[in-house]
Amino acid sequence: MSVNQSLKPITTKRENNLTIGGCDLVELAKTYGTPLYVIDEVSLREICKEYKSAFKDYKNINMMYASKALCSLATSKIIADEGFGFDTVSAGEIYTVHKAGANMSKVLFNGNNKTSREIELAIDLGVGRFSVDNFYEAELLNQIAGKKNTTVSILLRVAPGIECHTHEYIQTGQIDSKFGFDLTQTDEILNKIQSDYSNLKVKGLHAHIGSQIFEPKSFEDEIDILIKELARINSKYKLNLNELNIGGGLGVTYTNDDNPPSVEVFAASIKQALKISAEKYSIEEPVIYIEPGRSIISTAGVTLYSIGSSKQVPNGRKYIAIDGGMADNPRPAMYQAVYSAEIANKKDNCALETVTIAGRFCESGDILIEKIILPKPEAGDILCVYNTGAYNYSMASNYNRVEKPAMVLVNNSQSDMIVNRESLEDLVLRECIPDRLK
Amino acid sequence: MSVNQSLKPITTKRENNLTIGGCDLVELAKTYGTPLYVIDEVSLREICKEYKSAFKDYKNINMMYASKALCSLATSKIIADEGFGFDTVSAGEIYTVHKAGANMSKVLFNGNNKTSREIELAIDLGVGRFSVDNFYEAELLNQIAGKKNTTVSILLRVAPGIECHTHEYIQTGQIDSKFGFDLTQTDEILNKIQSDYSNLKVKGLHAHIGSQIFEPKSFEDEIDILIKELARINSKYKLNLNELNIGGGLGVTYTNDDNPPSVEVFAASIKQALKISAEKYSIEEPVIYIEPGRSIISTAGVTLYSIGSSKQVPNGRKYIAIDGGMADNPRPAMYQAVYSAEIANKKDNCALETVTIAGRFCESGDILIEKIILPKPEAGDILCVYNTGAYNYSMASNYNRVEKPAMVLVNNSQSDMIVNRESLEDLVLRECIPDRLK
Repeated sequence: MSVNQSLKPITTKRENNLTIGGCDLVELAKTYGTPLYVIDEVSLREICKEYKSAFKDYKNINMMYASKALCSLATSKIIADEGFGFDTVSAGEIYTVHKAGANMSKVLFNGNNKTSREIELAIDLGVGRFSVDNFYEAELLNQIAGKKNTTVSILLRVAPGIECHTHEYIQTGQIDSKFGFDLTQTDEILNKIQSDYSNLKVKGLHAHIGSQIFEPKSFEDEIDILIKELARINSKYKLNLNELNIGGGLGVTYTNDDNPPSVEVFAASIKQALKISAEKYSIEEPVIYIEPGRSIISTAGVTLYSIGSSKQVPNGRKYIAIDGGMADNPRPAMYQAVYSAEIANKKDNCALETVTIAGRFCESGDILIEKIILPKPEAGDILCVYNTGAYNYSMASNYNRVEKPAMVLVNNSQSDMIVNRESLEDLVLRECIPDRLK
Repeated sequence: MSVNQSLKPITTKRENNLTIGGCDLVELAKTYGTPLYVIDEVSLREICKEYKSAFKDYKNINMMYASKALCSLATSKIIADEGFGFDTVSAGEIYTVHKAGANMSKVLFNGNNKTSREIELAIDLGVGRFSVDNFYEAELLNQIAGKKNTTVSILLRVAPGIECHTHEYIQTGQIDSKFGFDLTQTDEILNKIQSDYSNLKVKGLHAHIGSQIFEPKSFEDEIDILIKELARINSKYKLNLNELNIGGGLGVTYTNDDNPPSVEVFAASIKQALKISAEKYSIEEPVIYIEPGRSIISTAGVTLYSIGSSKQVPNGRKYIAIDGGMADNPRPAMYQAVYSAEIANKKDNCALETVTIAGRFCESGDILIEKIILPKPEAGDILCVYNTGAYNYSMASNYNRVEKPAMVLVNNSQSDMIVNRESLEDLVLRECIPDRLK
């Protein structure tokens, strides 16, 4: 079983209490406080190894972790050590992976509206590839590269007319997306680059079809469209572009109803599609970039909360309140995402209860889990919510002026703080009262 | 016209460029960078004065600004100076208003799951009223107050069976809410307090029926239910509870389609309802708390963005990308909220264009305004989005690892930074790489 097919970090064990990476979750909660993000180093390294192994027989592949799923110094260091590059989308992500020691030539810079300041930083730090999203950006990037007397290697981001939603996908002739060039615009941008933008060196194409995808067929369709376009461009412009960034999107297992393919099945499908399409359009199999984000980090992460108050609505449901919610995990409120959880300090062999897990934030919409069966939850219990590695820390806010949680890395029964908990002082750190108001 | 009925800060003027508080928005963008939150001091003070004036003939009313809409040192200082108290929902909000110089006896502590640490801080800083949400909290609060040898004054948060959504409201016999005691539970909690919780002193009741409400009738219904319950309790328990916190919820004008009542109309309706219901149930008109948040701060705030790239989808719409989006304003993605905007440096008398304002964040859902007519937007233009004072800064995240914007206060042609822009260094401030990974 691939890590992304597991509901829980692969080191999760139930002794008296739940343990992950050999660390007792109740002890972690006691030591570091709650809410607490926990990252299982073994799960993280293992899925990186799975990706490398699954693609090792492909001649030239670059694994670029999509930092937007979770970007921190320690996790970036681990992912870099596992041989991955990074898909980044901001100065902040570039700065962080650089500080974590990433090989910057293995960093891509994506995004639909990169600012001048960000482009400058990316060039200065030696980012390997820019995914150019639109005409304006091509001009801006060429101008900045020119000013710096350098040439930057780019991929052209295109909208391939495929969009994927979890279990299904929609194929549209005319995709309505804010990202990338329409396939009818690639000639125009290529002509412009060839004639006017001497500081840009086109290497290939980039697309991204969606997120939390369960159906490898979506990627096969994408690859066919991209290789066809690559072949067309090479033939028409007498070029030898040979790089394809096919984006990320492999799904994970938020609940037992989710059934994503294994990394191996995903890779096999991609490799086959590359072979078939390359033959079909008579080009060599291209250099590939893939950008997994969620599937790398989601399963490795859990969040620990302390259970506090509860409310039995007469003739209605029972709410159990935790000390976190939509500020540390906005996905249920934003995407109606569904999560699974266990009580760390209670086994399933006691009396069970169906409850709603409510967040602590002052908003009716702050419900973390609509309906879950748990051993009768009580104040002081530690709730472990699974699969929170992706898009939790990265999307966290200070809503209700609540301090952001700490994050610890666990492995071999050892825990290390990798993100310190915010303090009350931190909340006002950047604020001031102008003298004239005093 | 009340401030909350205005789409724009009341000092907004169109000269060549847009100005607010006498400050040229293009100059502000140049000086402080974008995205930039701007708060108009005059609009903020004016609506505070409107509330005070509209209720001045009511014998005993306490205005408690709902900090969750926007809590910062400088805005809290202004609101405190205008004579308001504060509705707070976390240690962070309590700490901030205290640091801003609020009179802590005029601070309420609300929330469905206050932690021990927060309750301790609230007691230590002398918070005036605790709104007790549930049985567990009553016990916890009594215990902590006892340990500190003090007595705390409480309101009982109840779920009155009314819920309001923007233009309509739903009245349900059995409300399903995570907040407060069901009205069938008030006897049980009162008995418990009278017999067991000697460190709690009940002062009255609290309810909150919703947000962005346009229909005063909702408040009238709420008041009737609360006064009826207050009268019942006083009569049954031979008490003289005389405090009612009726919550907040008055709406604002996000677009010209919104038509909230003025503060005066809202106040008149509440005062009349109080009079009618007090007579009906034969009690004196109670001491009132109201908790306006959005209506106090929303209109005073705008956000300035720089326009960057654009994309014309062939035979489709035109996307204009800004340098912010769902991380500094998650409301469109989270609540499908609709906003209005102008280009600060362009008058409406040039060629107009219908466009979609896309954020910079790597997510298709990051669309700030779906459809808006603007003077042909070009790279470098400054977009001014109105009514972003509430639930923008307070809900902001670092999604895509983008630094949080700065905030300036404008008045009398002067601008003062009240929140410094986050730096790249700030992003990694709390992060570290454990030695064993190095």
